[in-house]
Amino acid sequence: MSELMSKRILISNDDGINSEGLHKLHETLKKLGEVYVVAPDRDQSAVSHSLTLYRPLRLDKTSDFIYTVDGTPTDCINLAINGILRDKKPDLVVSGINKGENLGDDITYSGTVSAAMEGTLLGVPSIAISLVGRGDFNFDLASYHSELIAKYVLENGLPKDTLLNVNIPNIPPEEIRGIMITKQGKRLYDAPIVEKVDPRGKKYYWIGGDELGFLSIDNSDIVAVKEGYVSVTPIGLDLTKYDLIDKLKSDLSRK
Amino acid sequence: MSELMSKRILISNDDGINSEGLHKLHETLKKLGEVYVVAPDRDQSAVSHSLTLYRPLRLDKTSDFIYTVDGTPTDCINLAINGILRDKKPDLVVSGINKGENLGDDITYSGTVSAAMEGTLLGVPSIAISLVGRGDFNFDLASYHSELIAKYVLENGLPKDTLLNVNIPNIPPEEIRGIMITKQGKRLYDAPIVEKVDPRGKKYYWIGGDELGFLSIDNSDIVAVKEGYVSVTPIGLDLTKYDLIDKLKSDLSRK
Repeated sequence: MSELMSKRILISNDDGINSEGLHKLHETLKKLGEVYVVAPDRDQSAVSHSLTLYRPLRLDKTSDFIYTVDGTPTDCINLAINGILRDKKPDLVVSGINKGENLGDDITYSGTVSAAMEGTLLGVPSIAISLVGRGDFNFDLASYHSELIAKYVLENGLPKDTLLNVNIPNIPPEEIRGIMITKQGKRLYDAPIVEKVDPRGKKYYWIGGDELGFLSIDNSDIVAVKEGYVSVTPIGLDLTKYDLIDKLKSDLSRK
Repeated sequence: MSELMSKRILISNDDGINSEGLHKLHETLKKLGEVYVVAPDRDQSAVSHSLTLYRPLRLDKTSDFIYTVDGTPTDCINLAINGILRDKKPDLVVSGINKGENLGDDITYSGTVSAAMEGTLLGVPSIAISLVGRGDFNFDLASYHSELIAKYVLENGLPKDTLLNVNIPNIPPEEIRGIMITKQGKRLYDAPIVEKVDPRGKKYYWIGGDELGFLSIDNSDIVAVKEGYVSVTPIGLDLTKYDLIDKLKSDLSRK
């Protein structure tokens, strides 16, 4: 434990500095080392992935360990690693605990995962943690697994350009069946657009209706969580589809 | 050509409906089929990836073929495929022509690429097209290659969950060396944060300074473009890092 206590951990999220999940994560990870919080000053769930290059950012310091940024989760991680912690690079980035899942294709839209992507791109082993469900969240189980998985990554590291995407079911601790290592699942994406009329008679549209469904794929993140497992998916950031390169070369390169 | 003319093509972008690149793309792709434009009503470069689920969207119809949405590029494609074109699914989605590159790791932050990702997730072969450079853009070369690559995909399709990310150098047509099939490059991400003081004495921060650099990797998108080639990168949307699953299983699954 004494060796771990010399570790430096950077945490952030996309729900903003006042989110319950961030506070729970902070509390838990303090057991593993020195925790820095650099988080958006407000909810950034809708902004998701972007790095703010077109305008300056403001940074407010609450203490030597807690900062807020008027930007996205990605901005927070970039400002932290390239700025605040430039001379004391963190050993681990953890993003979360998000209220709501980040499963399947959704990870390409997720602010929570994007913070972990930015940490990874900047060379720091990174984890995204989400609590699956709606309504009443119980963070006990998520806190327990956040600590366990963070400790594993602090001790073992992660391969280059790889992060862990962790989704934890919002069920009573006694019902959890363990950790399952999963692959990225697939969302059922063809929900019809809901069309309605506003009080002024103008139409408006809502994407996805009530709930977007998922395909039931063995060993996928979504199936694991549904079956009561904590899902841990290793995610790589090289999106190149290598097996298509030769065909495209012969089809297109000489044009 | 007569067979192609029965094709239905959906185009969008992240610079918004009034962008020059979108108009050039529209003009060019009309030669290949019936083109529908569903684009953001304003510049969405900063918003990038997100799907708007937390609020309704407004759709304005300019003609039977041209629509604007008060949302992100992803929203546009979703509303188009699941709404406007629900009974006449497009054969191709093309996003662009973006003013500015989408190379290397940047594609995970790109609004232009995200529109093509959404098309892909909704089962339509999709292409993202960007013109690399700053300042004066000449779209002639980009238009020529947009048509060529769009025609190829209309005739040959693309594997499931795969899109093409195309970057075209902003150089005189006679200097272009051809098409190179590439892999995703890597950004040099450790540019220091620029710290300045505003007219009221308050500090502000700017990410990345003037310009973010890239690693020089053979056959990467960035190197191809620098050497005067049109870069075509096949991009897959399953981010699972399969080669790490077994190790994680033995390390973590039993915890």
